[in-house]
Amino acid sequence: MIDAISFENGTLGYLDQRFLPLKEEYIKTKDHQEAIEAIKTLAVRGAPLIGVAAGYTVVLGINSFTGSKEEFPAFFERLIADVEASRPTAVNLFFATARMKEIYESGFENSSLEELFAAMRDAARKIHDDEIENCERMARHGVELIRRDLGETLKTRKLNVLTHCNTGTLATGGSGTALGVIKQAWKEGLIEKVITAESRPLLQGLRLTAWELEQENIPFFSISDSSSAFLMQKGMIDFGIVGADRIAANGDTANKIGTCAHAISAHHHGIPFYIAAPVSTIDITIDDGTQIPIEERDADELRTIFGTQVATPTTPVINYAFDVTPGEFIRGIVTDKKAVVGNYREELPGLFA
Amino acid sequence: MIDAISFENGTLGYLDQRFLPLKEEYIKTKDHQEAIEAIKTLAVRGAPLIGVAAGYTVVLGINSFTGSKEEFPAFFERLIADVEASRPTAVNLFFATARMKEIYESGFENSSLEELFAAMRDAARKIHDDEIENCERMARHGVELIRRDLGETLKTRKLNVLTHCNTGTLATGGSGTALGVIKQAWKEGLIEKVITAESRPLLQGLRLTAWELEQENIPFFSISDSSSAFLMQKGMIDFGIVGADRIAANGDTANKIGTCAHAISAHHHGIPFYIAAPVSTIDITIDDGTQIPIEERDADELRTIFGTQVATPTTPVINYAFDVTPGEFIRGIVTDKKAVVGNYREELPGLFA
Repeated sequence: MIDAISFENGTLGYLDQRFLPLKEEYIKTKDHQEAIEAIKTLAVRGAPLIGVAAGYTVVLGINSFTGSKEEFPAFFERLIADVEASRPTAVNLFFATARMKEIYESGFENSSLEELFAAMRDAARKIHDDEIENCERMARHGVELIRRDLGETLKTRKLNVLTHCNTGTLATGGSGTALGVIKQAWKEGLIEKVITAESRPLLQGLRLTAWELEQENIPFFSISDSSSAFLMQKGMIDFGIVGADRIAANGDTANKIGTCAHAISAHHHGIPFYIAAPVSTIDITIDDGTQIPIEERDADELRTIFGTQVATPTTPVINYAFDVTPGEFIRGIVTDKKAVVGNYREELPGLFA
Repeated sequence: MIDAISFENGTLGYLDQRFLPLKEEYIKTKDHQEAIEAIKTLAVRGAPLIGVAAGYTVVLGINSFTGSKEEFPAFFERLIADVEASRPTAVNLFFATARMKEIYESGFENSSLEELFAAMRDAARKIHDDEIENCERMARHGVELIRRDLGETLKTRKLNVLTHCNTGTLATGGSGTALGVIKQAWKEGLIEKVITAESRPLLQGLRLTAWELEQENIPFFSISDSSSAFLMQKGMIDFGIVGADRIAANGDTANKIGTCAHAISAHHHGIPFYIAAPVSTIDITIDDGTQIPIEERDADELRTIFGTQVATPTTPVINYAFDVTPGEFIRGIVTDKKAVVGNYREELPGLFA
C-alpha cells in the first residue's frame, strides 16, 4: 500500500511526489511550516490529498502552540492564513480550513484549548477517513457498473481499461477515484491490463499512475495520449475511466486536458467511458460545460520538460490544462453515493437530495 | 527560405536537424562518407529529403573517384552499398540508388566515365527538382480544394488550420506536403493561424514545424496533441491537413501516431480533414489499412525526453509510431496529380492511369 500521507504520534508523513517515479522520498515532520512548504512546492499534490494535508498541517500548527488561551486567536488566524496561502486555488484546502475555523468559532469561548485541539485533531483525521471511505464507495459503485455494462465480455475474458492523468492514492489519500475503481476491479479479477495515457504536458499518467500501479503489482503499460484512438481501433481497450475536476448539471465534465479526445474516440468505437468523482465535484448550479472556466497554464510546461528545453523559449503555445467532455460521451458518472447512468440533468440533482 | 538541402559546385549543404530548433547548424561537405553519416545519424531526416540526400551523396562519391574506368564498377558497387546501408528502411533512399544503378547499368559499357557521371549528376538534381515540383503541385491542388470546401467561411474571415508532425521543407526538400499546402494557402491570404500539434513522442510538431513556420513568418501556435479535440469544440480549428506514410486503396491512411485521433475529432465536429501526399505514397495493391504494417518503436522514446529520464527505465510502454486513419474520416487526399475527394476505391486507381 502506498503511503501518500499519514499522521501518527503528532508527526505528518508524506511522500514527496516531485521526484516520482525516479526517487521515492518519504518525509516525516512535526513542523507546520515544513508542511506548508510541501503543499506550496507540489511535493504534496492532487485536490483531495491537499485537503487532507491542510487539515493535518493545522494540527501540526496547534501542536506547536505553547501560549495562553488569550494568545491563541492571533496565532490561529495567522496559522490559517499561512495554510490558505500555500495553494490559493485548491478548493479542498479551503474546505479543510473552513472546517477548522468552524470548530474554533463554535468552541473557543466555552472550551479549554485542550478540548478545542482534540476536536481539531478529530476533524483532520475525519477529512482523511472520509476521503478513504469515499474512494471505497466509488470503487464499489464503479465495479458494479462495469460488471453490468461489460458483463458479456467478462464471460469470456478480462478487460483492458484506459485511464488518464493520476487519480489514485497519490491524488486522494484513499485508493483513488477512477484509479480506485480500477484497483477494485483488478482485485475482483476483472482487469487484464491498465493503459495509462501519459497525460502531456506534465506526464502524470506516465510518471505517477504508472508508479502507483507498479507499487500495487497491477499489470499496465503507458502510451502517448494520442495513441488511444488507434488502440481502440485495434480492439485493445474495453472501457475508459477518468476523474473529474468539475461536473455540470448536464454531465459535461471538466477534467485534465486529453480527456475529451479519449471520450470522443471511445464514443466512436462504441467503448464505454466513465467518470469517477465524489459528489462534491458536481456543481448543479452550472448549467453546462461552456460555463466551466478552463485554466490556461504556462507555455513552458510544453516548451521545457523537467528542465530540458525542447522548443525555443519564444515558441507560441496554447496550454489549456483541462478540457470539457460533453455529457453525451459519458456512459456513467460514478460517485460516492451511487453511479448515475445518462439522463444527467434529471438524475444528478437526486445526489444532493 | 529554409535551406534544408542544397548542392552547389560539387558541395552538399544541409541543415543538421538534430539540434533544431535550439541550434541551426548548416554543414557543407564534399565528402560522401560525411554525407552518409548525416543520413545515418538523422541529421538529415524526412522520407523525401533522405531520397534527395542519397542522390547527392552518390554524386559526392563519384566526384571523389580518381581511378580508371575498369576500376569503377567495384568502386560504384561499394558506394551504393554504403549509401543504402545508411538508412535501410527508407524507401525513398532506395528509389534514389535504384535510379543511379539504372544509369550505371544502361550506360557504363557505351559511355565514358565523364558522360556517366554527368548523367548521374543530372539524375540527382532531378530527384530534388521533382520533389520541389511535386510539393508545388500539391500546394496548388490543396489550396483549390480548401477554397472550394471552406469558401463560405472564407467570405467572412481567414482560417485556422491544424497540422501534425513535420511535413515541410525539413522533411521534403521542397515546400512540403501538408505544410506546403498550408504555406501556399497562407501566401494567398487564406490562413489566420497554423496550429502545430506537438507530435509526441519525438515532438516534430513542437520543434520542427514550429521552427519552419517561424522562419517563414507564418503565425502559429503549438498545442499538446490531445488538446486538438477541445480546440475544435471551442471553434478554434477550421480544418486539418497532415501528410501520409502510406495510403491504401480505400483511402485508409497510415501517418504519424496521433493523426487518427485528430481525424475522429474533426469528423465529430464537422471539420474537414485532409491528407497531402505524393501519388508514390498510395499503394492500391493494399486493400485497406488493416494490411499496413505499423512500426512499434523503442519504449525509451516515451520514457526519456532528449536525454532526460521522465519515467523509470522499467515502465512498460507501447509506442506505435504510426496509426491508421479510416478513409471515411478523410475529406480529401491531395496529391501531386490532383486532389481526390471521397470514393477512394473508385478514384485512386485513376491516379496511376
